Amino acid sequence: MLEIGQILEALSQVNDPELHRSLTDLKMVRDVKVTGGVVEVTIALTVPNCPLKDQIDADVRAAITALPGVERVSVHLTAMTAEERKSLFGESEEGSAAQFNRINRVVAVMSGKGGVGKSMVTGLLATGLAHAGYRVGVLDADITGPSMPMLFGLQGPVEPGPVGIRPLQSRSGIKVISMNFLLENEDAPVIWRGPLIGRAITQLWGDVMWGELDYLLVDLPPGTSDASLTTMQSLPVNGIVMVTTPQGLASMIVRKAVHMAQAIGIPIIGIVENMAYFVCPDTGKQHTIFGPSHAREVMLTAGAPLLAQLPIDPNVAALCDAGQIETATLAEIPALLQAFIQAVPVTASPPAG
Amino acid sequence: MLEIGQILEALSQVNDPELHRSLTDLKMVRDVKVTGGVVEVTIALTVPNCPLKDQIDADVRAAITALPGVERVSVHLTAMTAEERKSLFGESEEGSAAQFNRINRVVAVMSGKGGVGKSMVTGLLATGLAHAGYRVGVLDADITGPSMPMLFGLQGPVEPGPVGIRPLQSRSGIKVISMNFLLENEDAPVIWRGPLIGRAITQLWGDVMWGELDYLLVDLPPGTSDASLTTMQSLPVNGIVMVTTPQGLASMIVRKAVHMAQAIGIPIIGIVENMAYFVCPDTGKQHTIFGPSHAREVMLTAGAPLLAQLPIDPNVAALCDAGQIETATLAEIPALLQAFIQAVPVTASPPAG
Repeated sequence: MLEIGQILEALSQVNDPELHRSLTDLKMVRDVKVTGGVVEVTIALTVPNCPLKDQIDADVRAAITALPGVERVSVHLTAMTAEERKSLFGESEEGSAAQFNRINRVVAVMSGKGGVGKSMVTGLLATGLAHAGYRVGVLDADITGPSMPMLFGLQGPVEPGPVGIRPLQSRSGIKVISMNFLLENEDAPVIWRGPLIGRAITQLWGDVMWGELDYLLVDLPPGTSDASLTTMQSLPVNGIVMVTTPQGLASMIVRKAVHMAQAIGIPIIGIVENMAYFVCPDTGKQHTIFGPSHAREVMLTAGAPLLAQLPIDPNVAALCDAGQIETATLAEIPALLQAFIQAVPVTASPPAG
Repeated sequence: MLEIGQILEALSQVNDPELHRSLTDLKMVRDVKVTGGVVEVTIALTVPNCPLKDQIDADVRAAITALPGVERVSVHLTAMTAEERKSLFGESEEGSAAQFNRINRVVAVMSGKGGVGKSMVTGLLATGLAHAGYRVGVLDADITGPSMPMLFGLQGPVEPGPVGIRPLQSRSGIKVISMNFLLENEDAPVIWRGPLIGRAITQLWGDVMWGELDYLLVDLPPGTSDASLTTMQSLPVNGIVMVTTPQGLASMIVRKAVHMAQAIGIPIIGIVENMAYFVCPDTGKQHTIFGPSHAREVMLTAGAPLLAQLPIDPNVAALCDAGQIETATLAEIPALLQAFIQAVPVTASPPAG
């Protein structure tokens, strides 16, 4: 003879696929009726039209069907009210979504100077990690000049989830969030002073349903002001990849960024020198268009190894503009990835988000 | 028979070469003694060891010698006390130096995106204008990633003047001010939040002894946050030169900057497309390394003409790194200069600083 207690016990083993907590914990089970071998349950989704409702329905059905004596299961889906959601999730200080996130390693990609290809390096790293089987997120912390939407070919708007907003997913499954996804028009300028920039970054961290990630890469804007400061002070950054180019000018400004990281006490994992040379397609000859390398000086200042020297490759630039960075190939990428993973390996027990 | 009144009258025609006001106005004349044909005057310099003291001495001497009956002139130089200086100059709201500055046209060089060569364009424009005989200043508004010191080969510290700080002068006489001139070490990061960035820019405008300038170029950092906002709202900017590159990514972010300028109501003078192509030195062939031009889209959004398309030139990059931008030559510069001067001609009666 089936009992309601058995059904609830079974449902306590079913997790919400986004929030990684059981349906009973989340107070989603609203009604259970047992009539002989027939079980009827009512489940309140956290938001109406939850994109994962089919999966929840199937998981509930499977869990109950597995009980001895069950002949038929019918699942009714309703949705929580705004008040129920609020009383359930509350609002934590760092954003309501943060309490459900499990992010193992947070790595910021920085340069101090703009236009050195920091975003390209972020995109290539994220893609490589995703292809290697890691769960990867990218937080575009360049609020006024975001690059990630174009690189990954993603466009907003983002959808609200039960406890914050859902990031968009790239073709290889990378979760991406960018200020541009929140704007009506990608050309719209964000004319904000620093304090708002900082607040936007903490929201893109704490109000986004990142879920479980092995790596979250944070693409920083140029400069050592609000965006970099807030990221380093408010996010649990494990390390920094510093991107530079052969220009002396760039390396001087990158050294400022190195000193900032050192002052705040965040380790620099390594240096990537971008735009190191251009191979003429006609002659195969390498041209050091932006001058000889200054990577050694930056390495010495940073006390960090050189992870890679990347060429200027018109094909990669074209793929970036076409939203196809995930299909880009460069001979240097495998070694870059290996050095990166070695420098910031995923830990066995991920820290709480 | 010589009279003290005649001497004072003559000295009222002598201007302080920096402050452009007469010595009597500035209360610099402290004592006049006439003994027959012998005249002794005591002049209080606004600061001790004023670098222009020899010129002041000579000007005073010449003015008095020109009077009939003068046989010999002796000039004693002393210096004002800090209190005298303060009571004389006071402190205007926008900085004590501002009241002495006469700046005819203020043009900001902007891009929204970093690394497009905005600073190089600023340096080339400033050099071209100076060589054409204009009096030019450059305000490096990139507080956290300044480029001007390296481009012009200039190093701080700057010297205090009577009413603010003196800009440094480049080889071709361009007056340059940059945050780096105020730092002990050029690698030191400026880890400031936005409000301080904004205040630094208004000080580099109002507390600097620009003197008389035909053009002041303001080199903006990337982004549409504090530095750009403060410059556009607090400085009397007459127009903006917008710098872009062929990358679609750059042009999207540049369009944000265009919309910001339009929202604030500052005219865009024209577009410069940088890094348009690279000429292989072996084959002479043009390679569009960063993809096909997007200048047309930016022009349409901005409603402004294309001032120039500049190539990637390794020689120019090397000169920038070596502090030699004033010796750089590019075939496109004369036309760029002509278009620039036509778009923002110096007015007959310069506005008050």
